[in-house]
Amino acid sequence: LDSGRLGPVRRLVNTLSPAEIGNLLESLPPGKREVVWGLVDPEDDGEVLVHVGDDVRESLIADMDPDELVAAVEDLDIDDLADLVEDLPDQVIEEVLKSMDRDNRERLEQVLSFPEESAGRLMNPDVVTVRADTTVDVVLRFLRLRGELPDHTDHLYVVSRRHQYLGRVALSALVTHEPATPINELIDDEQAAIPVTTPESTVANQFSDHDWLSAPVVDENNILLGRITIDDVVDIIRERAEHQALSAAGLGEDEDLFSPVPRAVRRRVIWLAVNLVTAFLASAVVGQFAQTLERVVALAILMPIVAGMGGNAGTQVLALMIRGLALGQVGASNLRALVWKEVRVASVNGLILGSVVGGVAWAWFHDWKLGLVIGIALMSNFLAAALVGVLAPITLRRLNLDPALAGGVVLTTATDVIGFVSFLGLGTLILLG
Amino acid sequence: LDSGRLGPVRRLVNTLSPAEIGNLLESLPPGKREVVWGLVDPEDDGEVLVHVGDDVRESLIADMDPDELVAAVEDLDIDDLADLVEDLPDQVIEEVLKSMDRDNRERLEQVLSFPEESAGRLMNPDVVTVRADTTVDVVLRFLRLRGELPDHTDHLYVVSRRHQYLGRVALSALVTHEPATPINELIDDEQAAIPVTTPESTVANQFSDHDWLSAPVVDENNILLGRITIDDVVDIIRERAEHQALSAAGLGEDEDLFSPVPRAVRRRVIWLAVNLVTAFLASAVVGQFAQTLERVVALAILMPIVAGMGGNAGTQVLALMIRGLALGQVGASNLRALVWKEVRVASVNGLILGSVVGGVAWAWFHDWKLGLVIGIALMSNFLAAALVGVLAPITLRRLNLDPALAGGVVLTTATDVIGFVSFLGLGTLILLG
Repeated sequence: LDSGRLGPVRRLVNTLSPAEIGNLLESLPPGKREVVWGLVDPEDDGEVLVHVGDDVRESLIADMDPDELVAAVEDLDIDDLADLVEDLPDQVIEEVLKSMDRDNRERLEQVLSFPEESAGRLMNPDVVTVRADTTVDVVLRFLRLRGELPDHTDHLYVVSRRHQYLGRVALSALVTHEPATPINELIDDEQAAIPVTTPESTVANQFSDHDWLSAPVVDENNILLGRITIDDVVDIIRERAEHQALSAAGLGEDEDLFSPVPRAVRRRVIWLAVNLVTAFLASAVVGQFAQTLERVVALAILMPIVAGMGGNAGTQVLALMIRGLALGQVGASNLRALVWKEVRVASVNGLILGSVVGGVAWAWFHDWKLGLVIGIALMSNFLAAALVGVLAPITLRRLNLDPALAGGVVLTTATDVIGFVSFLGLGTLILLG
Repeated sequence: LDSGRLGPVRRLVNTLSPAEIGNLLESLPPGKREVVWGLVDPEDDGEVLVHVGDDVRESLIADMDPDELVAAVEDLDIDDLADLVEDLPDQVIEEVLKSMDRDNRERLEQVLSFPEESAGRLMNPDVVTVRADTTVDVVLRFLRLRGELPDHTDHLYVVSRRHQYLGRVALSALVTHEPATPINELIDDEQAAIPVTTPESTVANQFSDHDWLSAPVVDENNILLGRITIDDVVDIIRERAEHQALSAAGLGEDEDLFSPVPRAVRRRVIWLAVNLVTAFLASAVVGQFAQTLERVVALAILMPIVAGMGGNAGTQVLALMIRGLALGQVGASNLRALVWKEVRVASVNGLILGSVVGGVAWAWFHDWKLGLVIGIALMSNFLAAALVGVLAPITLRRLNLDPALAGGVVLTTATDVIGFVSFLGLGTLILLG
């Protein structure tokens, strides 16, 4: 690419799948990104847009003229198109809607009428349905007439005359049973359909709890509306994991590796400012002990250890709790048992590391009282970290705040303040008392 | 459960899928966990064991006698059984092997002969194969004779006489084509088979890049060995995400929410000890400035801000880099562009927050020189954090160390040391010079 010979690059890029092209574009800095985007086969443009993060998508769309955009997205599946719509210019949306036939337009509008991050937004209305009062042979003849099935079709859905969902028939059942077998006998009605308003996180959990490849979606009257497939669920699981990892640093999962500097600054500075407020709070606490620090400079030298180690111990508890909350394994029913376990772990760790730190401090500053002070302070801060590590994420969740986002800030503030107060407070009492 | 009436609990538990029961058991503290485990339908025992983390599995297995264990695991699929084998007592493994027929025993031994976390361990040898020189009608008759297909069969595999992999035929193609169609015409030979030694992380990426539901696994001679299905890939994706989230706190993804206290202490204390060494290193740096701190106590009060904010800014860069590495989006080719972007972001953020912190320090201590010192120190630490945030994870990866595990420790050490040196060093020069 650097040499400016685009022919081989074009050939290479177009051997990749849309998801791989998306991944490649995300890894390219501005400048190169636009060049490679221009080389992508226009047929793949739409699929690539579906597979990149919001920020990168915006930068790619900004690079296309309306005609190109219309051509790129008009052949997408309804669920993918619904995913893109918000990022498209109004003019393009209008063109695309005009180019669709009435059926598809109505389907798109229906999908868009459901709340974001609900089953309704994930589903594809393109399903193959059959009646219960027929046979394998009739269904096979119907399918041969119909031709190609929608991607990832592993089941046909059985519906009533009023299009109510009754159950499903596996393709594998169709091909392993005699032509005369009534469909009735092959229906699997154990898998309940997913209500259209179910949140996507619940959908993801159901898929992985039951090893589903696809699942029917119904409205409140049990009318079949569409079908969710595992590939979209995998995307949700990945996004959720990225969200958790990045939000701990105050970033969104759509953050572009090469987002423009002004945008990156704007987003990051907010989170840094929140942390700054808590840092000043901790400093203000330290400021209360200015006289002590003037007289015993060893306290100033050692104080970052107490605060920092408390933060580290609390981070371990927090990480376990955030995973537990995400998996639905943590709640009011086992809260007491969790606190009790973490308090015991913190006590033992506090005893071990408090003794080590105390011993080192004693040896370093030749002052056994100083060793005692830091040892006790570290133990207290470990206990506080355990309590905050368990209780903060649960409390944040109850307040409808994201524990993955806010948990770390709350924890660090607590361990800083408690660490400084206990260490400098004990120091004042024992060393100057 | 608390009331001791087990009948309703048993009924409730046995309406759940094995994965849901596993999730429930993981959320229960010791004591209750054993009680509920005793209520699970013995038929589900094996599947539940497959669905829980290593630590919890160990605790459940410890609770069963050998006969129960043999009964629980002998009906599992080969890939699931291979997953469990290491955790079973030798006596049980022997019994299970004895109870299997020769074919299955050989298959299990073959799967176990491949390295852990490779495609060979993920695959299930149970595949349905057909020949190319036949027709849809013949295949359908063969399938009807054969009966039920293995779970999640969406394709049949076409093999040569020597069992070499030639391509695949979708069930959806079988049911939509006329009986007389030659299988030849329906073969999709575009999807390459997965070599048996491929690492599981590569397998996971291929599945989500290509939206596969299943994929064939072959040996070095292209002989078909088995099949990997999306449900196992989803488990890998989830485990990988958990690994990343937990290893940042020095924990493994198999950590039990209720692991016994001695084990939890042993595991956590190692990571805390590593952090303690780096904390002492930072304190030793501060110790070099003892005389300065004695004369200007404001430096002691403000120093946690410089170190902490540098750590926060670096954490944001680190989080982006770790995701980029996991997705294969970061490497030598875009390293320079990444450093340049992060340096610019850090400069602007440093200018903004350095001015704020400098202004507050000036107002607080009525000393503009102190404001200048902390402002410059913060800016320098932001720049250092950007460089370390980009370069540390890449360097760790080159050294074959896990950036998600070690990145945070390296970053914090750097921002602590650089923060303290620049702040206290500048303070000594400007305030006492």
